[in-house]
Amino acid sequence: MKKTVGVIGGGQLARMMIVPALELGLEIKVFAESADASASMAATQIGDYTKIEEIRQFSQGVDVITFDHEHVPLEVLEQLEAAGVAVRPASSALRFAQNKIEMRKILGELGLPIPDWAEANTVEDIDRFLLKHQGIAIAKTPTGGYDGKGVRVIRSAEEISDWLQLGAVLLEQKVNFVRELASLCARRPSGDMRTWPVVETVQKDGVCSEVISPAKDLSEQSLHLASEIALKVAEGIGVTGMLAVELFETEAGELLINELAMRPHNSGHFSIEGSKTSQFEQHLRAVLDLPLGSTEPNAPYSVMINLLGVDSENDLVSRYPAALAAHPSAKFHTYGKSARAGRKMGHVTVVGSDLVKVVAEARAAAAVCLKA
Amino acid sequence: MKKTVGVIGGGQLARMMIVPALELGLEIKVFAESADASASMAATQIGDYTKIEEIRQFSQGVDVITFDHEHVPLEVLEQLEAAGVAVRPASSALRFAQNKIEMRKILGELGLPIPDWAEANTVEDIDRFLLKHQGIAIAKTPTGGYDGKGVRVIRSAEEISDWLQLGAVLLEQKVNFVRELASLCARRPSGDMRTWPVVETVQKDGVCSEVISPAKDLSEQSLHLASEIALKVAEGIGVTGMLAVELFETEAGELLINELAMRPHNSGHFSIEGSKTSQFEQHLRAVLDLPLGSTEPNAPYSVMINLLGVDSENDLVSRYPAALAAHPSAKFHTYGKSARAGRKMGHVTVVGSDLVKVVAEARAAAAVCLKA
Repeated sequence: MKKTVGVIGGGQLARMMIVPALELGLEIKVFAESADASASMAATQIGDYTKIEEIRQFSQGVDVITFDHEHVPLEVLEQLEAAGVAVRPASSALRFAQNKIEMRKILGELGLPIPDWAEANTVEDIDRFLLKHQGIAIAKTPTGGYDGKGVRVIRSAEEISDWLQLGAVLLEQKVNFVRELASLCARRPSGDMRTWPVVETVQKDGVCSEVISPAKDLSEQSLHLASEIALKVAEGIGVTGMLAVELFETEAGELLINELAMRPHNSGHFSIEGSKTSQFEQHLRAVLDLPLGSTEPNAPYSVMINLLGVDSENDLVSRYPAALAAHPSAKFHTYGKSARAGRKMGHVTVVGSDLVKVVAEARAAAAVCLKA
Repeated sequence: MKKTVGVIGGGQLARMMIVPALELGLEIKVFAESADASASMAATQIGDYTKIEEIRQFSQGVDVITFDHEHVPLEVLEQLEAAGVAVRPASSALRFAQNKIEMRKILGELGLPIPDWAEANTVEDIDRFLLKHQGIAIAKTPTGGYDGKGVRVIRSAEEISDWLQLGAVLLEQKVNFVRELASLCARRPSGDMRTWPVVETVQKDGVCSEVISPAKDLSEQSLHLASEIALKVAEGIGVTGMLAVELFETEAGELLINELAMRPHNSGHFSIEGSKTSQFEQHLRAVLDLPLGSTEPNAPYSVMINLLGVDSENDLVSRYPAALAAHPSAKFHTYGKSARAGRKMGHVTVVGSDLVKVVAEARAAAAVCLKA
């Protein structure tokens, strides 16, 4: 019996799920925001994912509902679940990805390593936290932030007075990290899990810019710890499908959890070429409770670079002839989105055995695409 | 500017072209035979590819027309070309793939190595050819044959009296080959070409069953010769897109051309995982005259095994849980076709550095899928 997966959200993550769906012979249906969404090829419904009637209609005749993003209101998901629809990850897990304060609470309860944090509802709460942390803190809106949006480095309460008017704010200790890592895993409803070797991520203006798999010169102990953290989060929260755990590595070699995502994640795009099983294939296998694939690397190193829009003219595709000609071994991925400065338009991945060469090739390939 | 490729035919080759189209940000439109065709996800028109009005309508708004199969009537293609549509491969090349007698003529003119052959229109023609070749020959219908259909080993004219009534028959010397090989290349309209290392193909009942890339223990000279043959055919005939040249290797180490295909070919499916650029991506690049990708292998060996239908019950997908569980490193590909004994339902590919292990793993993975 052919299985059908319904994906809410028509962005690039849904687009990249189409490939393993075709390969594995799974039916994929996408609930997209607009007819020109990135995953429009598999779109069977266009609508508003906050409307329970529309989502309920979409869920008819699919075996499982999963997501391109984490923004579907919890009430919508809970009503689907009450109606007997398999939602993966479930609302009971996804609520932690939707609220950064709830996430810190559960991670603390699970005994996992996180930066010191507090919920601030008043100016006094903020002042108290700043006093404790040398007068500096990271403030985050509990909901709705992504790619650097909803995050500020603050030294006084005034800097987030606008946010405070709207409700609670998350305050976090500013961690002096030496680099950022990400630990990916997938978990089936039956509990089986697989991890990938931890990757190194480079952010630029709060947006993921470059990913190196595996992270360079990481101790065996840290490699193991990073995987352990991902597995404990997945199990502790009951995640089904892909989980990405963004981590800070401190000078002392400590690993601290920064953020979580319960879906394929930008830090895992390298896996399309770099791993026996990509995160997109693994996500589909996991949410359908199919056996998970090997996460063994296809090459010693993989480097992925995001292609961000330069301006509204640079639609990537017009850069192809030059990029393909100059870099015949680089793998280009486009998301079919209209161009806009700073928008994630695509990515390029290079794999190989010499990290210096792989990084240089990936950066050169990206540079050709990004020339204004 | 986004390019649009129109594919006539909705089979598994078109289905596997969808993946690189998504990755490279190309628009792909498929003219399918039926709504449940293998490539139905990209189907924009359902119809009869022998009808010029339907094909003409389909060709509106695509940058180039290419094919999932070689059965579109030449008149249809010539009319499209006369109307200014870019057809790749062009009718001037495709006519050799559509008629096995025309193919032998051009290959002979190009001075390429082929088995001795003759066009037979009478019983006398057949008797003469049999006399010359120790009383045995291969007879082929000039048009319409595939996967062993339209091919007979004959020892007398009576054995093909039914064919002779319909027109000319191709007779070929029965080659005592030690194995079969296939040499793949891609060619752009601008003339740029890329080859892959020659593969070894195993046929069972006239259908491709197993492909090993690269062919085992082939001399440098034969490797080079096989590529040279493919390049000379592509150039001599003016092929654009993928070309597969099926070859016989004789005991003396000679290479003789058996058949040609001017499209992605079963012998190239290994390249999805086994090569930096798959034959499907290369085909799209070639027909759109984009720079060709690297054909460097991703691993020392790749083995592909076809998954043929056992009976109408075995739809492959129902075998997945067992196959995925037992073989987490094997890559399964399904074509979304209804099950039928002997039908190409999908394939499985394993890559690695130890050929014995790779072959064993691929065969074991296929066996799980094919258990009745």
